[in-house]
Amino acid sequence: MRGSLGEIGEEAVINLIADKLISKPEAGESLKHPDDARDLLPRGPRLIYSMDAYRIKSLMLPWRTWSDIGWTALTGALSDVVVKGGVPSVAMIGLGLSSETDILDLEELVKGLREASNYYDVRITGGDTNESLDPWIAVSVIGFTTCKRPPSRRGARPGDVVIATGSYGSMGFIALHGVMEASGISWVVDNTKRVYLKLEVANVIMSTYRFIHASMDVSDGLGYTLEQLSELSGYGILLENLPVHPAGLREYCRNNIECMWRHVLVGGEEYGAVLIVAGENLDKVAEELDYYEIPYSIMGRVGNISPGIYINGARITVERWDQFRGWGKRFPMGDTR
Amino acid sequence: MRGSLGEIGEEAVINLIADKLISKPEAGESLKHPDDARDLLPRGPRLIYSMDAYRIKSLMLPWRTWSDIGWTALTGALSDVVVKGGVPSVAMIGLGLSSETDILDLEELVKGLREASNYYDVRITGGDTNESLDPWIAVSVIGFTTCKRPPSRRGARPGDVVIATGSYGSMGFIALHGVMEASGISWVVDNTKRVYLKLEVANVIMSTYRFIHASMDVSDGLGYTLEQLSELSGYGILLENLPVHPAGLREYCRNNIECMWRHVLVGGEEYGAVLIVAGENLDKVAEELDYYEIPYSIMGRVGNISPGIYINGARITVERWDQFRGWGKRFPMGDTR
Repeated sequence: MRGSLGEIGEEAVINLIADKLISKPEAGESLKHPDDARDLLPRGPRLIYSMDAYRIKSLMLPWRTWSDIGWTALTGALSDVVVKGGVPSVAMIGLGLSSETDILDLEELVKGLREASNYYDVRITGGDTNESLDPWIAVSVIGFTTCKRPPSRRGARPGDVVIATGSYGSMGFIALHGVMEASGISWVVDNTKRVYLKLEVANVIMSTYRFIHASMDVSDGLGYTLEQLSELSGYGILLENLPVHPAGLREYCRNNIECMWRHVLVGGEEYGAVLIVAGENLDKVAEELDYYEIPYSIMGRVGNISPGIYINGARITVERWDQFRGWGKRFPMGDTR
Repeated sequence: MRGSLGEIGEEAVINLIADKLISKPEAGESLKHPDDARDLLPRGPRLIYSMDAYRIKSLMLPWRTWSDIGWTALTGALSDVVVKGGVPSVAMIGLGLSSETDILDLEELVKGLREASNYYDVRITGGDTNESLDPWIAVSVIGFTTCKRPPSRRGARPGDVVIATGSYGSMGFIALHGVMEASGISWVVDNTKRVYLKLEVANVIMSTYRFIHASMDVSDGLGYTLEQLSELSGYGILLENLPVHPAGLREYCRNNIECMWRHVLVGGEEYGAVLIVAGENLDKVAEELDYYEIPYSIMGRVGNISPGIYINGARITVERWDQFRGWGKRFPMGDTR
């Protein structure tokens, strides 16, 4: 189809989305499109659910297509559920689109959402579409867990070990050097076009939640995640080892450790999980991570020290993107140099 | 607090929303703000869930405050779940707000959401906030039902009876005459500032779902809802009686029936329910509606006739607001005059 959404009108827009994106009812379910609500039988003793939303503009990197945006939006929303030990089951999508939006762009967006839906085996079952001069996407997710007590962000205690899954440094490169410079660096482009979330992290948490004192995903930068866990728990985090990172970062930094730390702690959308694990049970969690072939790094430990992130004994500060004010500082880790 | 969201920044915005809006965990739950995901124990054998989204501008009538917008957004989202027999349990709120937005407006929006949350006894448990030049709100709802087979939109059969709850004509007045003229009519203003959804409709459906062949709420106009039910079921709907309407409409129309039909069939956001009931079991459904003190009208019946809405044997057409194109016709029922 060619033209803008304004030309084809709401009904055609909804039909396009419904035909290509909305899953049919499964056994035991009654409702389907065009019903606004859907029914679902519980697939676990406890629901884990969330809503995540994005300004489309903020997801748009020069090398991302609209389909990459769709992929990224669903991936990010699932990440919130997975890191609490939930296996995502269904998602609904709210869209705000301009009447000037090209139908081909909408088709790409839907394609990316569909690809992610297939890859993660999460059904997209409905949503809502509105006009907006500043396009946006909202994703709600329902999952299920067997955890009797899903890990929160506030249970880290001295002696705990800090584990991070996911790969870091590519989005950090963009945050530090800008999109222009990043667009010439192939490992940055490759690692940020689409991120592949490890759903199996939910399985790891389900089988070891008694030993996981806190958890949080990385959507706004690894440093921010670590700071949140530290502040909410009331103890400092002592970092000793870098997280998993692209070989390209090591080359770029010429093995300079400070340069590497600087890149891995800022960024966002890496969708790894930081797990704070009881020290004496580290082996059990590591074993599960190995079983599911999830790459991870044992980054450090929780100390009996005031909240904050420490590298080599020095407290560092990490800035985070502010939705309403932008970046707080141009060089987030400037005070450690 | 005074100033704009850009001045206070994202963290203060989120804290403002979290403090005033986000409910604490209940017994058996672990997760709470600032965790992005929440946990919930099933409160019924089957989930009913949905997502609804709005451009704030499209909800803004001159006599509505930001708190009325919040009220309306939650009411509309709950309506989708209720009309499928679901008792809403929790909701999450996605917000897109401009950095120019006044903090006082955000506080009002939160107040309206909170009032609706209290009134409907539905907890708001989380959400997400983003910047947007064109503010929007998305609401996801999870409810539970005992219905083994929640009614869809497609089960109407000849001989069924058409029941409508809710009151109609006020939004229709606005659609037909415009906001300027409507602002001088007190019954229009009073009925459209805030709509009060009858949650008990879910109880009626749970106890009589075997006799309810189809259902749909009224968010885009009663005529549109009736047409959807008719088209999806493959049979026409023969209207005989007006729905419940304000006394002011009867006065305005000077008892002219055609004028009244014209007003009640267009509009939107009335959040009544249209129930298509097996004729031989009408009494059982009526008894439940009476028990819960839900006002309703028996509007007509389903005929063995081609899909469409018929009044006095003549097929009528009703236009609906198109998100991307606006109104199809200025006078939706012009062809019946």
